[in-house]
Amino acid sequence: MRIGIIGGSGYTGVELLRLLCVRDDVDVVFVSSRAQAGNPVCQLFPSLRGHVDLKFSNPDDVSDTPCDLVFFATPNGTAMTQAAALLEKGVKIIDLSADFRLKDIATWEKWYGWSHASAHLVEEAVYGLPELFRDKISSARLVANPGCYPTAVQLGFLPLLEAGIVDTQSLIADAKSGITGAGRGASVPNLLAEAADSFKAYAVAGHRHLPEIEQGLNIMANGNVNLTFTPHLLPVIRGIHATLYARLNTQADLQSLFEKRYENEPFVDVLPAGSHPETRSVRGTNMCRLAVHQPQDRDTAVVLAVEDNLVKGAAGQAVQNMNLMLGLPETTGLLHPAMMP
Amino acid sequence: MRIGIIGGSGYTGVELLRLLCVRDDVDVVFVSSRAQAGNPVCQLFPSLRGHVDLKFSNPDDVSDTPCDLVFFATPNGTAMTQAAALLEKGVKIIDLSADFRLKDIATWEKWYGWSHASAHLVEEAVYGLPELFRDKISSARLVANPGCYPTAVQLGFLPLLEAGIVDTQSLIADAKSGITGAGRGASVPNLLAEAADSFKAYAVAGHRHLPEIEQGLNIMANGNVNLTFTPHLLPVIRGIHATLYARLNTQADLQSLFEKRYENEPFVDVLPAGSHPETRSVRGTNMCRLAVHQPQDRDTAVVLAVEDNLVKGAAGQAVQNMNLMLGLPETTGLLHPAMMP
Amino acid sequence: MRIGIIGGSGYTGVELLRLLCVRDDVDVVFVSSRAQAGNPVCQLFPSLRGHVDLKFSNPDDVSDTPCDLVFFATPNGTAMTQAAALLEKGVKIIDLSADFRLKDIATWEKWYGWSHASAHLVEEAVYGLPELFRDKISSARLVANPGCYPTAVQLGFLPLLEAGIVDTQSLIADAKSGITGAGRGASVPNLLAEAADSFKAYAVAGHRHLPEIEQGLNIMANGNVNLTFTPHLLPVIRGIHATLYARLNTQADLQSLFEKRYENEPFVDVLPAGSHPETRSVRGTNMCRLAVHQPQDRDTAVVLAVEDNLVKGAAGQAVQNMNLMLGLPETTGLLHPAMMP
Amino acid sequence: MRIGIIGGSGYTGVELLRLLCVRDDVDVVFVSSRAQAGNPVCQLFPSLRGHVDLKFSNPDDVSDTPCDLVFFATPNGTAMTQAAALLEKGVKIIDLSADFRLKDIATWEKWYGWSHASAHLVEEAVYGLPELFRDKISSARLVANPGCYPTAVQLGFLPLLEAGIVDTQSLIADAKSGITGAGRGASVPNLLAEAADSFKAYAVAGHRHLPEIEQGLNIMANGNVNLTFTPHLLPVIRGIHATLYARLNTQADLQSLFEKRYENEPFVDVLPAGSHPETRSVRGTNMCRLAVHQPQDRDTAVVLAVEDNLVKGAAGQAVQNMNLMLGLPETTGLLHPAMMP
Repeated sequence: MRIGIIGGSGYTGVELLRLLCVRDDVDVVFVSSRAQAGNPVCQLFPSLRGHVDLKFSNPDDVSDTPCDLVFFATPNGTAMTQAAALLEKGVKIIDLSADFRLKDIATWEKWYGWSHASAHLVEEAVYGLPELFRDKISSARLVANPGCYPTAVQLGFLPLLEAGIVDTQSLIADAKSGITGAGRGASVPNLLAEAADSFKAYAVAGHRHLPEIEQGLNIMANGNVNLTFTPHLLPVIRGIHATLYARLNTQADLQSLFEKRYENEPFVDVLPAGSHPETRSVRGTNMCRLAVHQPQDRDTAVVLAVEDNLVKGAAGQAVQNMNLMLGLPETTGLLHPAMMP
Repeated sequence: MRIGIIGGSGYTGVELLRLLCVRDDVDVVFVSSRAQAGNPVCQLFPSLRGHVDLKFSNPDDVSDTPCDLVFFATPNGTAMTQAAALLEKGVKIIDLSADFRLKDIATWEKWYGWSHASAHLVEEAVYGLPELFRDKISSARLVANPGCYPTAVQLGFLPLLEAGIVDTQSLIADAKSGITGAGRGASVPNLLAEAADSFKAYAVAGHRHLPEIEQGLNIMANGNVNLTFTPHLLPVIRGIHATLYARLNTQADLQSLFEKRYENEPFVDVLPAGSHPETRSVRGTNMCRLAVHQPQDRDTAVVLAVEDNLVKGAAGQAVQNMNLMLGLPETTGLLHPAMMP
Repeated sequence: MRIGIIGGSGYTGVELLRLLCVRDDVDVVFVSSRAQAGNPVCQLFPSLRGHVDLKFSNPDDVSDTPCDLVFFATPNGTAMTQAAALLEKGVKIIDLSADFRLKDIATWEKWYGWSHASAHLVEEAVYGLPELFRDKISSARLVANPGCYPTAVQLGFLPLLEAGIVDTQSLIADAKSGITGAGRGASVPNLLAEAADSFKAYAVAGHRHLPEIEQGLNIMANGNVNLTFTPHLLPVIRGIHATLYARLNTQADLQSLFEKRYENEPFVDVLPAGSHPETRSVRGTNMCRLAVHQPQDRDTAVVLAVEDNLVKGAAGQAVQNMNLMLGLPETTGLLHPAMMP
Repeated sequence: MRIGIIGGSGYTGVELLRLLCVRDDVDVVFVSSRAQAGNPVCQLFPSLRGHVDLKFSNPDDVSDTPCDLVFFATPNGTAMTQAAALLEKGVKIIDLSADFRLKDIATWEKWYGWSHASAHLVEEAVYGLPELFRDKISSARLVANPGCYPTAVQLGFLPLLEAGIVDTQSLIADAKSGITGAGRGASVPNLLAEAADSFKAYAVAGHRHLPEIEQGLNIMANGNVNLTFTPHLLPVIRGIHATLYARLNTQADLQSLFEKRYENEPFVDVLPAGSHPETRSVRGTNMCRLAVHQPQDRDTAVVLAVEDNLVKGAAGQAVQNMNLMLGLPETTGLLHPAMMP
């Protein structure tokens, strides 16, 4: 299988390369980057020395390279202008940006600030959360890979909402992300000197992942939910921890509920009762680890969900989707344990 | 004024020394530590070289040293056995441990696991949160210095509860603490190799600060509140960030409410609307910085509160209380800006 | 092939498990730990959930378990008391501790403070640095796996000493190690609160790795060298950076010298001229990356060497040695790229 | 005394403000920044809320503001174009950039890449290392504040070179700096995601601080020294650790030598024999802590020197120089202990 990566100089790009370069069943035939065109990939990412011999291609030069599937690891706004032409050539697409995530065009345009360039493809695009849409993903031409926060938050609320046992109007997601979530761009607030040994919330008034998460929760709840979503910046490289709060309107065995819902999911691990997952336990892996609590036996369920924002929250889930779309075993290349410590 | 510190080898002990050693109006006459007795203080804490010439005293040797005020920077369970004798000698006491924080003895004994050795002093003890009890503190003989989490959480909820505009039965405090909150004891989970570049919740089923916080919130709300309190461990040295959620049952100008409530408080700083306080902005200082949001103009207020867990959350607040108890200006020795970056 | 791990609850133990659990050609049949006996391995190391189903065995119960090879990931002093019995049963041994590293018994006893319990095996033991002793390792029964600092320092000096172009009496190794080098024991100085956001040298007066390094350098130089070795503690989890200084007594093309010496070595990567290797570029991998400089064209060569102290500096090199001893391809299971960022 | 700060939006600027804002004897009358002109200082640096009420001035608007002394906290190349005009008005100058540090114009132009705009002032400028040039500083109009690395390296070598007991042709300075040394500019390599949990050398081929250091060492040695200087990037916010190597050509009591040389220096602290200074022990302070070793009683002296790169390595030393130039007690405002932990 021939794979292309458009926009390979950011963190999701290098992570796709890390996951794919050791595989025999897929071959990365190009990695494009306008800024890095002509430079060896392993000059920018020395970790790939001996693993990736490619140079970055100019994005304008790759459109005729035959491919089975292309990843867009580009900023928002790029995939929507190029997707149609690729699909016409029979190339499958996984878009790691937000261009095809929201089904409501008006909502997308409000939060992202552009006119949508491929509104006609939005309906066709499948939201790439395998735990919800595995079958659709398997037969899709165009997959919108979920955001990092949305993956953790949706997987954490899913069993509660499907079971219909919580108040859907007072959901809270207090989420914390490692700094790679902010991307590889030069920025003063993301300097080590500014962000290390400190912690803060950001975008409390409104974050683009809010409508994406609510869209998914609405499907699970079969109705409109109301979510308060508060993102925070962790002084760690990778990792998301979502702490989720929902008021129970029915008593239930929460531990069993979670274990049953996810018993066949290869990348969702429900921890034993009383556990507290650590982000490092999933570092570098495609696993989402969950624990569910009901503190003091009161009426609030507390779900703890961890993932690696660059893997299950981005490139790893994209590879999981690629495996499904190409008819490969879903877990191929994604089963290594985390490095710990 | 002559000051003694009982239990000076931990993080609150060295922080008391850092704050007091540069002052001319008070004199630290002893610092005790059973484990370190006889060793120079600045051998254990080289940062104090040139500032503190004391050796650690054996705790058994200090009871006759004349003092105006003694700090207990000891583990829970020590102050309650020694307080009565000191008070009889006319020595004022600030206890940084939890021994005198809870008014309900049964609740204390349930959460701390001992019989209380000085139940008769519990009623007299004043809870040392100046923003609530300034006058009582000024005339107190025995002050129970608040816990680190309780300080941030109570200051954040205070204006909302006093105003009576939120549902008191669904309060949520999602709190994150730097690792010095766990103390200076040797411990595998607190090793840099275990805690760095990672993040987790802990004690979700129940943390000793829950009853302390609820006791304070009950006073503010003039009734029983219901709080879900989730502590998390941050890979930073100092700093607490509390993210607080309360459902509004009345519309109000939250920004004005907070600004008015705290306009005369020297150590509570309400940030401009739309702000996100960083823990580093209060590092090493006695300041608590707050911001209040109402995301998407929905019905949930989100309060962001930061403090240095060792200063406003422990030693700094203790010094603020000392200033009040000794009739000194409340802000003496506590007005330096944070080091940033 | 059946593999046993004696002493599996420390950092080298879990790292051996991480590297071996994904392999089909070897089978870990037991992991022992006196302190953890009976507990599931993945309870202590949740990163191994789904990968390792073993419980820790009591060390007293494993001596009769048939094995092809046993790793000792124990503190110094254990392997030397158990090695002889295992060898007699035909079990091959790789000792990750220091028991068999020094050929001179008196030197060992001086630096480690015990009488050596298996002096008769010291001569037979092969020092497990494949770049120097590959053939001997392949046929060895007992391999002494090198220390973390010694691996980086020896690989960095090797081309210079073999070429005979530097003054051997003024060698300097300024080495910096991540904190996992100190092991998994509870300790105040290694707490995140003590070691983060700081840096220091330690053991400047004398570190146990000094005689081990000098023994190796003597072989390369075919004579007695004089090394000043200064270890420092980095506030990072993994990684060693050795900065090596040697005075040139002959001009030479250093870049070519290094590239030629290591051109066939799978786990030594000489970077292009002018490079500065980062420890993160080898995180989690068995690679040692080197760069050589001659600043200002003066007479001092500066070699920069990085490795992951737990992989090429411990468990990874042990697996490389295991591959050699068992006749497996040397690089099996050791070829994944580093996670970066 | 009226003080101006030109270029106040970087790390040395905010550090000057932190140190000066609490003082009664000096008054900061303006802080300029072209990029931030018009913005409140405490909007950029919330740590200064309540301490600094100034807005950033446009640099073009401050030339007529009467001042006793002006700090240049600007990038290299600015002070040399503005110094002459200020001196003519009788304003004293402390330049924290490199414009006036090197006495040899040709050397300056080679390393900094410009023609020097005020060559006639270079001779007059006094190098602001009080331990070497206290008297000259006290009467200077123009002080060139030393670089961060040069301060630590020079203070560490000083006693050895003045005593004439080491080989001056084989000096080595292996230096490690916290990331604030790289300034506050947006930059990919200095992102937390790139620099945390890693370590590397940089500029091994040649760093601008090399000629500055050698200029100072030449004075101490009364002849030309030969230094190999290797800077490294530490994943910490503040702090420099210099590890210095010199071959002894005469036996001496090194501990006494250091203690005597610095016994009257308020900001150099020689630790007891056998010590290892930690960078955190001087965090936020103007202290340089030193330890001297002679490992294995061989012929190499190893000096360990720590300082805060933004204080003794920049703004603190500048304030020390200001005190001297204005006739104030040298230690004013610089005597607080470090925050530890």
